[in-house]
Amino acid sequence: MAGGGEVKLLGLWASPYVMRVQIALSIKSVSHQVLEQNLEEKSQLLIQSNPVYKRVPVLIHGDNISICESPVIVQYIDEVWSSSGPAILPSDPYDRAIARFWAAYLNDKWAASLRAIAAADNEEAKEAAVEKAAEGLALLEGEFTRSSCGRHNGKGFFGGDCIGYLDIMLGCFLGWVRLIEKLDLVVLVDESTTPGLAGWAERFCSDPAVRDFMPETGKLAEYAKKFFPKYKNPKMLL
Amino acid sequence: MAGGGEVKLLGLWASPYVMRVQIALSIKSVSHQVLEQNLEEKSQLLIQSNPVYKRVPVLIHGDNISICESPVIVQYIDEVWSSSGPAILPSDPYDRAIARFWAAYLNDKWAASLRAIAAADNEEAKEAAVEKAAEGLALLEGEFTRSSCGRHNGKGFFGGDCIGYLDIMLGCFLGWVRLIEKLDLVVLVDESTTPGLAGWAERFCSDPAVRDFMPETGKLAEYAKKFFPKYKNPKMLL
Repeated sequence: MAGGGEVKLLGLWASPYVMRVQIALSIKSVSHQVLEQNLEEKSQLLIQSNPVYKRVPVLIHGDNISICESPVIVQYIDEVWSSSGPAILPSDPYDRAIARFWAAYLNDKWAASLRAIAAADNEEAKEAAVEKAAEGLALLEGEFTRSSCGRHNGKGFFGGDCIGYLDIMLGCFLGWVRLIEKLDLVVLVDESTTPGLAGWAERFCSDPAVRDFMPETGKLAEYAKKFFPKYKNPKMLL
Repeated sequence: MAGGGEVKLLGLWASPYVMRVQIALSIKSVSHQVLEQNLEEKSQLLIQSNPVYKRVPVLIHGDNISICESPVIVQYIDEVWSSSGPAILPSDPYDRAIARFWAAYLNDKWAASLRAIAAADNEEAKEAAVEKAAEGLALLEGEFTRSSCGRHNGKGFFGGDCIGYLDIMLGCFLGWVRLIEKLDLVVLVDESTTPGLAGWAERFCSDPAVRDFMPETGKLAEYAKKFFPKYKNPKMLL
């Protein structure tokens, strides 16, 4: 089948993990249909196509193929549509390994600290979570300097001239980063703390493959109220 | 550099994650030196080459390259030594996606239930952990039936005729599975509960690329006493 067959994405507009898949499909110009899911009442299609986790995103390709988990889906898209658009994974095995290492770090460690800031119901818990998130961003700032400014000689992205795998894996969180910065009155990515990432974030958000999928902060704030109780309290808001 | 340059592995004989790398290097016939690490007194080399996690395995390739995290290292080995020995990742993008999905499941979910059995200090906690581990094994039994007996038409491994990525990712735990079965008097992989995996486990352990690295149960039992207090108590042993 390779790139043939209908492509459907079981998605959710506010999910950073779904956004990864949207961006990858956009880079590869893959026509697809998004089937927006309601996680409070999961569809039979979602349950059947992702029986292990029952969560979005799921990529359905043709009649028989369901792929789950965003890092797996993005690599699948890069491999199936290898001749459409730029490559998402770097071509060099070492660069691929570095991108995969940091992608796993984001999923396994860093995303949890971002969630912990949103879920923190007291100042102490919030500060601890912010510190963890900032530690991770300092590591990523270092990696950005090494990769974009070092190995890739002054290019704008982790992946070089174009958005690549690690850009997608990290950039998908920027909508939530901006929201948390605003609602929790904290600084995560800015010129003074992470100058490399601050410039990168601007380039990322304004890239044609990304800008249509970056959720609007006000809409995300409404959504966040449903899942993180403290955001219901307007005193917490700016 | 591609496959040239000296290869060193910062390892630990009892670690299933290190074993994954040993098997991959063995499949690709890559000459290498193992630098056995002491996790109770971490070496400067380990700290410098894996500053984020400070844990084994780390693959050091040539003068400048350090790769961390076993799923990343095994894919790196497969890509750098692509023309030596059989491929480790499947060639088809869908099969690769499935292998990566289950590999991530093992690392993110299943391994924790295995550790929880070893760490459980009461019967209730042990039973809960055994149930979780068994649920995971039932899922993997299903995947084995679909892949080895289905798509690959009666082959002996997840990867087909030869040991592949998912075989390595799961098989590395078999030494610890056997130990836990013996010390905790539980059944995890056997003919009645997981017949497909039971046959697969035998083939895996006797494969030439594996058998030299599968730790001996008695030696592993001694090691386990250091980390899991209950195994120090001889009444718990058979």
